[in-house]
Amino acid sequence: MNFSSDTAAPAHPAILEAMVNAAHGPARSYGADPWTAAAREALCKTFETDLDVWFTSSGTAANALALSILCPPHGAILCHEEAHIERDERGAPEFFTGGARLSLLPGAHARIDLSALTRRLAANDPSFIHETPVHVLSLSNLTECGAAYRPFEIKERAELAHEAGLAVHLDGARLANALVSTGASPAEMTWRAGVDVLSFGATKNGAVGCEAIILFGAARQRFHELKVRAKRAGHMPPKMRFLAAQMSAYLKDNLWLDLARRANTSAAGLAAALTRSGAELAHPVDGNEVFAMLPPGVAPRLSAAGAGFYPWPSGSHRFVCSWATEQSEIDAFAATLAG
Amino acid sequence: MNFSSDTAAPAHPAILEAMVNAAHGPARSYGADPWTAAAREALCKTFETDLDVWFTSSGTAANALALSILCPPHGAILCHEEAHIERDERGAPEFFTGGARLSLLPGAHARIDLSALTRRLAANDPSFIHETPVHVLSLSNLTECGAAYRPFEIKERAELAHEAGLAVHLDGARLANALVSTGASPAEMTWRAGVDVLSFGATKNGAVGCEAIILFGAARQRFHELKVRAKRAGHMPPKMRFLAAQMSAYLKDNLWLDLARRANTSAAGLAAALTRSGAELAHPVDGNEVFAMLPPGVAPRLSAAGAGFYPWPSGSHRFVCSWATEQSEIDAFAATLAG
Amino acid sequence: MNFSSDTAAPAHPAILEAMVNAAHGPARSYGADPWTAAAREALCKTFETDLDVWFTSSGTAANALALSILCPPHGAILCHEEAHIERDERGAPEFFTGGARLSLLPGAHARIDLSALTRRLAANDPSFIHETPVHVLSLSNLTECGAAYRPFEIKERAELAHEAGLAVHLDGARLANALVSTGASPAEMTWRAGVDVLSFGATKNGAVGCEAIILFGAARQRFHELKVRAKRAGHMPPKMRFLAAQMSAYLKDNLWLDLARRANTSAAGLAAALTRSGAELAHPVDGNEVFAMLPPGVAPRLSAAGAGFYPWPSGSHRFVCSWATEQSEIDAFAATLAG
Amino acid sequence: MNFSSDTAAPAHPAILEAMVNAAHGPARSYGADPWTAAAREALCKTFETDLDVWFTSSGTAANALALSILCPPHGAILCHEEAHIERDERGAPEFFTGGARLSLLPGAHARIDLSALTRRLAANDPSFIHETPVHVLSLSNLTECGAAYRPFEIKERAELAHEAGLAVHLDGARLANALVSTGASPAEMTWRAGVDVLSFGATKNGAVGCEAIILFGAARQRFHELKVRAKRAGHMPPKMRFLAAQMSAYLKDNLWLDLARRANTSAAGLAAALTRSGAELAHPVDGNEVFAMLPPGVAPRLSAAGAGFYPWPSGSHRFVCSWATEQSEIDAFAATLAG
Repeated sequence: MNFSSDTAAPAHPAILEAMVNAAHGPARSYGADPWTAAAREALCKTFETDLDVWFTSSGTAANALALSILCPPHGAILCHEEAHIERDERGAPEFFTGGARLSLLPGAHARIDLSALTRRLAANDPSFIHETPVHVLSLSNLTECGAAYRPFEIKERAELAHEAGLAVHLDGARLANALVSTGASPAEMTWRAGVDVLSFGATKNGAVGCEAIILFGAARQRFHELKVRAKRAGHMPPKMRFLAAQMSAYLKDNLWLDLARRANTSAAGLAAALTRSGAELAHPVDGNEVFAMLPPGVAPRLSAAGAGFYPWPSGSHRFVCSWATEQSEIDAFAATLAG
Repeated sequence: MNFSSDTAAPAHPAILEAMVNAAHGPARSYGADPWTAAAREALCKTFETDLDVWFTSSGTAANALALSILCPPHGAILCHEEAHIERDERGAPEFFTGGARLSLLPGAHARIDLSALTRRLAANDPSFIHETPVHVLSLSNLTECGAAYRPFEIKERAELAHEAGLAVHLDGARLANALVSTGASPAEMTWRAGVDVLSFGATKNGAVGCEAIILFGAARQRFHELKVRAKRAGHMPPKMRFLAAQMSAYLKDNLWLDLARRANTSAAGLAAALTRSGAELAHPVDGNEVFAMLPPGVAPRLSAAGAGFYPWPSGSHRFVCSWATEQSEIDAFAATLAG
Repeated sequence: MNFSSDTAAPAHPAILEAMVNAAHGPARSYGADPWTAAAREALCKTFETDLDVWFTSSGTAANALALSILCPPHGAILCHEEAHIERDERGAPEFFTGGARLSLLPGAHARIDLSALTRRLAANDPSFIHETPVHVLSLSNLTECGAAYRPFEIKERAELAHEAGLAVHLDGARLANALVSTGASPAEMTWRAGVDVLSFGATKNGAVGCEAIILFGAARQRFHELKVRAKRAGHMPPKMRFLAAQMSAYLKDNLWLDLARRANTSAAGLAAALTRSGAELAHPVDGNEVFAMLPPGVAPRLSAAGAGFYPWPSGSHRFVCSWATEQSEIDAFAATLAG
Repeated sequence: MNFSSDTAAPAHPAILEAMVNAAHGPARSYGADPWTAAAREALCKTFETDLDVWFTSSGTAANALALSILCPPHGAILCHEEAHIERDERGAPEFFTGGARLSLLPGAHARIDLSALTRRLAANDPSFIHETPVHVLSLSNLTECGAAYRPFEIKERAELAHEAGLAVHLDGARLANALVSTGASPAEMTWRAGVDVLSFGATKNGAVGCEAIILFGAARQRFHELKVRAKRAGHMPPKMRFLAAQMSAYLKDNLWLDLARRANTSAAGLAAALTRSGAELAHPVDGNEVFAMLPPGVAPRLSAAGAGFYPWPSGSHRFVCSWATEQSEIDAFAATLAG
């Protein structure tokens, strides 16, 4: 009954097997190897477009590197006030950009409110030297509250941003979960909706440690700078093949979507059990995360039964399922709630 | 005949097997797992002392993070003018420290010259505000020229540094190779010789991607800050167990020393073949790297025969062996030279 | 009728005269001159305590340098959401600290709300690595809305901050105006109320360009670092005597308080005229700034009559008086309003 | 007999008078005032071209801001190993650029050696990600050894730099002295010789504190960024008119060249006295600085007689004259030497 985090799960056997298989013979370092080329090809096919990609072992690094090629040190990044880059990355965006600032927006379920975004962009004046203008809009899908944006919701926000001269970044640490629940294709949810740079996560969904920074369209002109910044930040692993092999295995035969579907199904079961027990869901369950307001006494009872989960700042509790969550865990959880 | 780099080698099977074995059941994220605790224990035993350790997947990150807890943004770091942190890390020390400076010293075979060090330290005046004072001495063992410092050589440099109020960092990306060739113990070469913080590499010697930042003695007071800086730089992998498992396997039953011995032996064979052919060694071969001045026509002949190696700025050529280098490669290389 | 800013005013003749008088004979550079020593003495007397001081020609630099010795790059600074350091300094705090973050608090009239501060401090956990903890509380007096904190209000906020382990910075760009309106002494409003580091402004109140960064008590241990950071940022003027001479003249015979009283009186007259005309004051007029909600048509009429002032984000308009504001300007303004 | 520094001199009366005259009536802040416009016009006339300019009160800031718009954080700046930006600015270039690096070149009399420059540029490879490529060549005229480059010497270095894709910065803290001794015009020594950005100093030659960052030609496209960076660094003084007034007075009726000529003449007299006494000049005396190898016993004798000067790292001693140096000081100095 470990619902503490999807990173508490181990790695999927197929991904480890791919790493083992990559350990044959010499290969050029730093990404100039056939595994990396193959992973890039697989991503092009998955996203139905040509693209540039850089692999890192950390989602924080993926986000911060992506932002650092889109925002100068004297600019700002628009994000939701509960975004991971604001709450959980210890100032990585500020570090990687050389001192840019996060500018926070409200919105239910950690989706950026459209009218708040509109007002903020209307007030933006890059020619006014005294204030810090915004250069990037950073969205997250799933959001930090486990809700999904549908493609048109990404698109309406991205269009506003582009009209105002901003670039659009998407933190897709749990993109697979959002795609499964919305039924959208990778392309529809990203570049077709206006995303310029994507942090595409695999670690929370079965990888050992693999995140891809994907550049679409005009953003691809920043690829050399991205590599330079990655090198400088210690995110240019010499044996890149072991990251690339993870990504290829992740995408192969839709493993990634299968794993996300599994996690989402577990979360739905967990949410149902919570609702039955009288708990109230704090946010829509659009992926593998459940946020619930627990009746008094329930949290201690769950803990006593061995369940792992976290209290959340809002007063709710967070329960996260992963591809490795077993039905028996859901059942035991439900039984504890019922009992 | 791939002598381009030790990072061109794959990962050792025992290390991959350890990763596979770590993929069982849930575990706490970010290093609070039993594999990480076990790897720390193994390091304590190896280095015969209590210590603090943080794992990264990048040697550049290990060096830069280590330096960032020892040097303020307005200070400088003493290193050899051919050091990896100066030549090959794209300004990572400057980035991680927030703008500190490298101050370069000469010395044969990329060993820092003792009298140059003495003079530089004598001229250092931290109370003088206009100049940038040095705060750290960074040594590399093996050096960038493949030479080894013996423990007393580390010690005499570290003592000078400590007397002048500096901390001592050791870039040990190839520490195993230096230990094998000098016969020194890990403790003798590091904290007993005055090293405060060690970048302890495994990637070049068989790991998938694993480097340890090790804090000895008083430097351990900086451990919390090290973790904070690692987090902020995207070097706090959620599934840390897969890094830790590599390190444990690396140390187990002296695998690391066996692999380094194998690489050193290959390099000795390669050096002998080169010498026989009329090439002159540019530097002592104290590890797995050979730098040679090739007679005219030799480099193209080797390339034509399929050998991988790099020309070096000094006019020599660099040949690197690894644990995976086969005797047949050395033989073929020698035959090409002879033929 | 120029009410656009107190920095639109020229410099006071006594201050310019002091600069002219300082231009005699050679003097040691960078602050080791007798004028600088005398200015420090004058500040010690004014603030009734021993202190360390550094002069800069910019309020932005004074604030950012002050914050940079109190907050590490991986920390955060608490301030009001309308603070000058947030709104008007183009990310200078982020730049000088190397990437620290501003964490914003609400509060009427740009005074930090006490309960919001209490809650924020209760949630602060420096041992939790993933989030950015706060290290400094930065207050402004006058606030950005022209309101004053009284000494006990500074004190209750500073005590909360100190209990939580934070340092306290006071942006006193308009401290003179706050002292005049509250009747508090310089000591009561600063170190006796718990202020560790003060940005003490003279530029808005008659100087050519002179701000003092003043360290009280334990913060004085950071004086060497402050000088280093000032040097590195180009804020160590070689002919420091010309800054110091300004400060001495500013303090002499209470010139500074006389000038502030003059500006405050002008603002009171301006506020009275506005109120009489049906405008509503948006904030208390505790100094030399008036924020008013203007009835329709009034702003264009004032502009047409040649009045200088700015619309403010909140919907109000800002009118600033200075020591150089003439009674005739207030009269003309009132007449325009009445007419 | 104060020969310690040209910044030990006071400010010239005409410059102070201009500041006093600027203190009349309100003016727009931050450079949007008529004094600033007039100073820009005077600079255009002096340099015989249209240009953009920003004023700062610090030469360190002028240099570092100039470099920060020419070099990314992951690039390097070529300069002489004795350049002021390397030796005397406490890492300001690193700070303002966000971590760029200085790459040092040798050369007699602190002039960059042409063949060393050629070799360094030939080795530069911006497409190679691991090393830090150079983006800027920074020259100083006068050099740190008091020698002057003639225009053709600037030009041959600038052409090499431009061919290699670098921008060219000139640290002209003592440009007036170099122009006087070489007879070159401001235009010949700067933009006509290939200088893109000039730090044009007045402080060492009679100003209170005034340096101009001047953008020529294509570099003018960076003017908005320069202002943003200046603001962010606390180098956008609200009462800019008092900087601009200094510059206008400095240029008016060739005051600046007259003052430099006076200082150069004093230095020539001082050098002659030294040579007569048996001292050997270490560098050409092309401006207001004299570096001499003193016979044993001379330095203490001069000090005992009240002369101010500094020992220099090379073993020589530095003597600096200024516009304020009196003939009587030279005479007394010569008498002490002779006696």
